[in-house]
Amino acid sequence: MDKEAEKRTEIGRLGEFGLIKVLTAPFKAQQATTVKAIGDDAAVLAPEEGKQVLLSTDMLVEGIHFDLMYTPLKHLGYKAVVVNLSDIYAMNAVPQQVTVSLAISNRFSLEALEELYEGIRYACERYGVDLVGGDTTSSQKGLIMSITAIGYAQGQTVAYRNTAKPGDLICVSGDLGAAYLGLQLLEREKQLFLESSADFKPDLEDQKYCVGRQLKPEARRDIIAYLAEKGVKPTSMIDVSDGLSSDLLHLCTQSGTGAIIYEDSVPIHEEAYSLALKFNLDPITCALSGGEDYELLFTIAPDDRQKMMDAEDITIIGIMLEENQGINLLSKGGNLHPITAQGWDAIQRLGKP
Amino acid sequence: MDKEAEKRTEIGRLGEFGLIKVLTAPFKAQQATTVKAIGDDAAVLAPEEGKQVLLSTDMLVEGIHFDLMYTPLKHLGYKAVVVNLSDIYAMNAVPQQVTVSLAISNRFSLEALEELYEGIRYACERYGVDLVGGDTTSSQKGLIMSITAIGYAQGQTVAYRNTAKPGDLICVSGDLGAAYLGLQLLEREKQLFLESSADFKPDLEDQKYCVGRQLKPEARRDIIAYLAEKGVKPTSMIDVSDGLSSDLLHLCTQSGTGAIIYEDSVPIHEEAYSLALKFNLDPITCALSGGEDYELLFTIAPDDRQKMMDAEDITIIGIMLEENQGINLLSKGGNLHPITAQGWDAIQRLGKP
Repeated sequence: MDKEAEKRTEIGRLGEFGLIKVLTAPFKAQQATTVKAIGDDAAVLAPEEGKQVLLSTDMLVEGIHFDLMYTPLKHLGYKAVVVNLSDIYAMNAVPQQVTVSLAISNRFSLEALEELYEGIRYACERYGVDLVGGDTTSSQKGLIMSITAIGYAQGQTVAYRNTAKPGDLICVSGDLGAAYLGLQLLEREKQLFLESSADFKPDLEDQKYCVGRQLKPEARRDIIAYLAEKGVKPTSMIDVSDGLSSDLLHLCTQSGTGAIIYEDSVPIHEEAYSLALKFNLDPITCALSGGEDYELLFTIAPDDRQKMMDAEDITIIGIMLEENQGINLLSKGGNLHPITAQGWDAIQRLGKP
Repeated sequence: MDKEAEKRTEIGRLGEFGLIKVLTAPFKAQQATTVKAIGDDAAVLAPEEGKQVLLSTDMLVEGIHFDLMYTPLKHLGYKAVVVNLSDIYAMNAVPQQVTVSLAISNRFSLEALEELYEGIRYACERYGVDLVGGDTTSSQKGLIMSITAIGYAQGQTVAYRNTAKPGDLICVSGDLGAAYLGLQLLEREKQLFLESSADFKPDLEDQKYCVGRQLKPEARRDIIAYLAEKGVKPTSMIDVSDGLSSDLLHLCTQSGTGAIIYEDSVPIHEEAYSLALKFNLDPITCALSGGEDYELLFTIAPDDRQKMMDAEDITIIGIMLEENQGINLLSKGGNLHPITAQGWDAIQRLGKP
């Protein structure tokens, strides 16, 4: 929201090829599988013998998926890459390349796009992935990003959604609900800002964790590395993007299983817990339905239980059951509540004009 | 433009997953390299031993790249896939998969999207590629598509843009300029329609070829097959999407060569030729700067000349020179004109609001 003395280079002055050149010049290929990155009709990748190639793609639309009122462009670039990498990790695979396509209105200057690409570059460097292509064009309104991540795995190690079995233990990494609460906080501060005088200062200091989880999520590369190190192959896996409820339902529906989740086992960060109460929200509801956690939700064979107990940041939260036993939350009070897809709901979003 | 008794199912009723299911149900995987298509965090592809994987991606924005006033959704879906496949063929490789991501405003009904996907499916079937993933979300305005094509090649056969040498012959498939003239015609008919009474009937009968080249282009799979059959590896290659001038400049700049193009050799379809004259345009200018032809522009070693002469739909249009000899058109009158990038110009488009 700071406009003073900002340098502004009109994008039209550069042309498409000039723009791509400026934006992608700082990217250096790191991966042996990257044969040819940007600059031809297509990127060229060479997987090693016996490897499988995995592709995941996401589209992010301004006003639908992000709000530039409170999302710094650098964070947006970082998050856009990370959430795609998360999809590759969720297959128990390792991402090595990304493509980034942009549609942009002329509201954006070169400096704004450079900020966006700085975030993209940080993510690429941190996760060791190469930017290998994309497309850049104009939009009629706002910023639209389409990102594709490419990963590799040995064939047998890929973890699908449809291979869980009754009796498998349900595990989740990290904690849940904080990103959603961070979003609520940012939305509240935005409203206060819009209704207030010019010198309004948002107060986010005490909720750094939740705001950080919303604006700068990380993908759980460490969990995939831990599983590989311990020789554990998840029997099914997904990343928590839509919310624990919705993503658990994907595993159960595709695997043909039921499940039970223990409320008192669901990991919730203490800051998220108290922020939920401050907003008059039920912390477990935020954890179940919030979404955008980008944690890994996976199932393991019962024999691997101890290896999960030994892990620093993995929690066993339930067990897979037979399909006819339903999908339920066992509350702290000892009652069973059916779990429904109250996570991120495309219906509401698609209903917008 | 026909609105009578049109069935309309609101997309919001289906939800994101329901929508994906309905739209992608008719797609059947055809490729041995497709291990897992839609329905998990990522698509899984398994290239054969020693093969390289190629990726190409494009973003298409309503109001920038297409106008639904005169573009049937089925044609749009078909074209969106084909232009991406063209990028893979332009690497002398064979596409086998695509991903399709959409951002859509609630102006679009399920039936409209099914029409779009019917076109996508026709293209997939015709070119033998599998739809393996994508993302579907809402937009604030109009339709935005992001398509990624994945192709495969033996490492040594990939044709890059930066490997042409002085003395190489410059070849092009098919003919040039017709798609641009088709677009001019559609734009003119649109204006007439907007200014006229309700029973206006566009008159496109005599220009079927040009309109077809604009609305339903094909990628030159046959040329790639011919080159493979004859054992010819192009020394450089690109597809003509921005216009012959602009795309030739890419080959020359990246290869560090000059070039000469013979005006009287540039292939122009007779319908395009007479339509250009009707519009008071110079046919050679349309061929040089029109774009969207999706023909292959490539260079070959002089020894392969006869094989090009024998081909049904390949024309030798010039020769690569030393860089200091410049890049020129030799006109029918015998004069040299410098070739500049007057093709599709991102600057103009990015300058739009």
